[in-house]
Amino acid sequence: MEDRPSSKSNSPYYDIVIVGAGPVGLMLSTCLSRLGYRIKHIDNRAEPTPTGRADGIQPRSLDLLRNLGLKSAIMRHKPARVYEVAFWDPAGASKGIIRTGTWASCPAFIDARYPFTTLLHQGLIERVFISDLEKNGIKIQRPWKITAFSSDEKQNPEYPVEVNLEHTDGTSRETVHAKYLFGGEGARSFVREQLGIGITHKDPIAHVWGVMDGVVKTDFPDIKMKCTIHSEHGSIMVIPRENSMVRLYIQIASSTDPDWNPRKTATADEVQASAKKILQPYSIEWERVEWGRRMSYTQFMQPKAGQGMNTAFLDAQNLAWKIHAVEAGFARREILKTYEPERKEVAENLLAFDNKYAKLFSERLPAATEVKAASSHTNGNSDDNEFIKTFKEACEFTSGYGVAYGPNALNWSSIHPAQSQLIHPKGIKLRTGRMMANADVTRVVDANIVHLEQEIPWNGSFRIFIFAGKPSVTSRALKDLAFQLGGKRSFFSSYLRPDIDTVSHHERYNPHSLFFTICTIFAAARSEIEISRDVPGLLERYRDLVYADDRWDRRVPNATAAAHAKMGLDEEKGGVVVVRPDGYVGIVTSLVEGSGTVDALNAYFNAFCTKKTGDNKAQL
Amino acid sequence: MEDRPSSKSNSPYYDIVIVGAGPVGLMLSTCLSRLGYRIKHIDNRAEPTPTGRADGIQPRSLDLLRNLGLKSAIMRHKPARVYEVAFWDPAGASKGIIRTGTWASCPAFIDARYPFTTLLHQGLIERVFISDLEKNGIKIQRPWKITAFSSDEKQNPEYPVEVNLEHTDGTSRETVHAKYLFGGEGARSFVREQLGIGITHKDPIAHVWGVMDGVVKTDFPDIKMKCTIHSEHGSIMVIPRENSMVRLYIQIASSTDPDWNPRKTATADEVQASAKKILQPYSIEWERVEWGRRMSYTQFMQPKAGQGMNTAFLDAQNLAWKIHAVEAGFARREILKTYEPERKEVAENLLAFDNKYAKLFSERLPAATEVKAASSHTNGNSDDNEFIKTFKEACEFTSGYGVAYGPNALNWSSIHPAQSQLIHPKGIKLRTGRMMANADVTRVVDANIVHLEQEIPWNGSFRIFIFAGKPSVTSRALKDLAFQLGGKRSFFSSYLRPDIDTVSHHERYNPHSLFFTICTIFAAARSEIEISRDVPGLLERYRDLVYADDRWDRRVPNATAAAHAKMGLDEEKGGVVVVRPDGYVGIVTSLVEGSGTVDALNAYFNAFCTKKTGDNKAQL
Repeated sequence: MEDRPSSKSNSPYYDIVIVGAGPVGLMLSTCLSRLGYRIKHIDNRAEPTPTGRADGIQPRSLDLLRNLGLKSAIMRHKPARVYEVAFWDPAGASKGIIRTGTWASCPAFIDARYPFTTLLHQGLIERVFISDLEKNGIKIQRPWKITAFSSDEKQNPEYPVEVNLEHTDGTSRETVHAKYLFGGEGARSFVREQLGIGITHKDPIAHVWGVMDGVVKTDFPDIKMKCTIHSEHGSIMVIPRENSMVRLYIQIASSTDPDWNPRKTATADEVQASAKKILQPYSIEWERVEWGRRMSYTQFMQPKAGQGMNTAFLDAQNLAWKIHAVEAGFARREILKTYEPERKEVAENLLAFDNKYAKLFSERLPAATEVKAASSHTNGNSDDNEFIKTFKEACEFTSGYGVAYGPNALNWSSIHPAQSQLIHPKGIKLRTGRMMANADVTRVVDANIVHLEQEIPWNGSFRIFIFAGKPSVTSRALKDLAFQLGGKRSFFSSYLRPDIDTVSHHERYNPHSLFFTICTIFAAARSEIEISRDVPGLLERYRDLVYADDRWDRRVPNATAAAHAKMGLDEEKGGVVVVRPDGYVGIVTSLVEGSGTVDALNAYFNAFCTKKTGDNKAQL
Repeated sequence: MEDRPSSKSNSPYYDIVIVGAGPVGLMLSTCLSRLGYRIKHIDNRAEPTPTGRADGIQPRSLDLLRNLGLKSAIMRHKPARVYEVAFWDPAGASKGIIRTGTWASCPAFIDARYPFTTLLHQGLIERVFISDLEKNGIKIQRPWKITAFSSDEKQNPEYPVEVNLEHTDGTSRETVHAKYLFGGEGARSFVREQLGIGITHKDPIAHVWGVMDGVVKTDFPDIKMKCTIHSEHGSIMVIPRENSMVRLYIQIASSTDPDWNPRKTATADEVQASAKKILQPYSIEWERVEWGRRMSYTQFMQPKAGQGMNTAFLDAQNLAWKIHAVEAGFARREILKTYEPERKEVAENLLAFDNKYAKLFSERLPAATEVKAASSHTNGNSDDNEFIKTFKEACEFTSGYGVAYGPNALNWSSIHPAQSQLIHPKGIKLRTGRMMANADVTRVVDANIVHLEQEIPWNGSFRIFIFAGKPSVTSRALKDLAFQLGGKRSFFSSYLRPDIDTVSHHERYNPHSLFFTICTIFAAARSEIEISRDVPGLLERYRDLVYADDRWDRRVPNATAAAHAKMGLDEEKGGVVVVRPDGYVGIVTSLVEGSGTVDALNAYFNAFCTKKTGDNKAQL
């Protein structure tokens, strides 16, 4: 990284060329720009996505945006929040429609910080990224397209990819050299096409919908809710918007229609007339149809389950840290190969689940008691019937918390090279390849109550959470841990910063290594913790990231140390949780006296790091 | 209000002239501008307060700012949050200093949404107001001063006050006419001086402090906390700031010194040397001294308890709604006379308390068990000793939740003209003249979980919270209430909007009257509430302000309807809470069948409204 051309220069050498400034390209660009990479980012549209296209940000995506420091910019737009979804069905006997149920978007059994879906125009979301990128000196080059690319590792070992770019009007051209080329243009990707990568469609029934944004006058009671309405006259989806606006998706054709025509169009009047029929016995009138001038007519689209943008965010973040880990010399190049299977499995699970879900619901509607049971506080009740189980699974998918990456070098499992009795201790609730649990803790240095899982901002580092249990119990183990971490061949000491001697003492997250940030959490009241006494050796350098696990949590009401308890760690003895830079748990170990804990962690990192760690014994 | 000149015109006629754009003037201007008043606002400084002067926003003030929609603009600056304050004292035997205690800024016994003090430069806070005012078309005229004013109600009954204004360089002059003149210039007020109004000082001991902002390197463990440090070498106050900055107030002179000189100065070097002595055995070095160029030397000030700005906010809001109530024809002019005693009593209580507090602490330091007991969850324990009681009182003052307005026409008491057995029902926890309790509820129309006390933004209206208990129990009482409110002579119907027939159906807060906004809260789950069935008569028009009291609250863990329980209302039968436009409880009544509830409310409003209400029987 050190000898690459500076970001400010006009050199045609880049770390990465990103084609397409939709959600995936923007997230990738944002993550990499924070780590100082040199990025060429182009998009073939003259302007960002117009504000008209709405999308739902999942609870988990909001966590992610907060971790990047972008949540408040999103919330400044005062987006609508969907806490519940209502279902309306034919009342029978030509009586119009009745509400058959309402379900939480993110029921209490999911421990989400933000248990709602945030609805905001995709264009506004993109602009939040664009303005953040500009702060980091990255301007998206528009309207430019990619016309050719080739790769030659022999000729140009450092920048093997040559990319030809062209203004869409053909007036200018550019050739650039890069280490990576990322195609994030969606379905009509030039990069994908050239590489012969297909797209799998699993959409058994196609529909054409009319989309209408506007201000309405109606006595339909759920006009401010997200609703799915089925009637004898067709279907409507209601999407609340900011202020008094509402978006209606009104079905105007289906592939199950006898006269199915995927190019069917309708006038605004026809769509409104159709909506009026579907909503009977309720009335609806449009006071104003919005969406700028383009709303003088009606646009058409095929709404997806709102997974597109959220999936894109996770894809990009998954890839970004792996590129960083490789480029910065920390991880072996093979870890890039974990990107596709991790993300593909998630996509496939989602598609498979969609089918199961649809099938279950086509058979019968759930009873009210089932909905209630499914939404309830507890999880994993073995008495749950098939419906309740499927509903819970659905909530995990639609909240974004259902993502689970399978076993590989990064996500420890019983087939991982690292094997020790200390790994995955008894009682642990965390699962590798899934998110760490949320927890409130008190930061020791300033007594602020904070969200532990948000305390390390996106910085490309592995997050080492040392749950240190009771200081009187773990004092020796913690000293040993600090000592072993400081040993010359430990995973930690093997990747020290080259500029370690000149790092500012204000550096909170990466004082020693660019690849690790360490938090220490004690099962004690804040007032009982004295950092200079209780936090030994190199750990003391992370004094801004020392916490008291002294906040009560309703999910573990009887725990003395709620954060420990939520992770499933012993409240006295603690344990160590290693979280990947994208927030997924990599490995959990016990915290023990001696070298066992660091030995286990060395073995874990050995599975994918460039240096063989843990060979020598600790040398301070 | 209708025939006053438009805000856009250059007419010299104003509703109010506001002199001074400090916290009190800005808050008054902001509140009145939201209600459409025509304001001339001047300030004799060429620029707003420089950003250097820090101030602490109390928890209660943050509620207030949120209610005005200004909180997120404040938080965008990422201010430091003070959750706890640490006390350091001489260790004895020349061993430097030791920590003798840490206390919560706003302990758990106070039910605050934001249990911390927010530290932000006063200049930045003022800019948030200034930019909000500009959105409402009000620009502060600078640097202008007031040179004379007179009042003649006979000559100009509508705009009796004539005010002469002048540019501070004397180059231009203006004469304007107003209904009100407000002097908010602080100690050196021209208006105050002319009217012969003195300022009371109660500051038995004077100190001179050196103020130094900067980035330091220190092993003092509480450098990120707010600390009061007393040593054998003098005193320091530590105020954390954003990023790695810290502000130190370093005492350089005291009126108790034998050579006391209130104009004593010191160089930056002298102040730093003094700080080093005081902080022993800890070390401190300045890496950078901030505060622009002005920090090349050291500024001096007398720090107050941080009450100034917070008091100013409450003063201004108290006055703003009363001016509005009078000017809009709702309340009798006498209510303006409640402003001074209400606010003066608060100020006097604060001063009296300060003395008591200082006295108590000069006698002995509290024991750790006392601090713990004082900070604990429960309140009003009769076993509390004097120290604990005083500490709790202190927390109420410093959080802003201690403000209690005494009995008068607005704050019901046993001597209020309104007397009925329904008023102040048994078990009620709310106290008139104090804030309504905070409560989470679920909004019925969109299932959003919201803060009930924030659901009505600052709009100058009385807030009628109808806690409707169990729908099956109160059905009749609620119908009767709606019917009686609609009666021609009810307090509600006596002040209908003149434009009531043309009000948009999107108007949420004031569809019927500019003086009342109504919320209805049922002790039922959201899914059980059907607005069209459960919310009768005119109340249904407030459909956006109907709530389910179905959120669990740790403070009333056994309650089925936590919001009802927190107010001290019967969870089945409910009750009606009338809250003044500034958030203080005016009166609480039972919710009963028949006309009793509205009769009691009519009597309450009769005590200060312009129209005699409740004379006739309900006429729909």
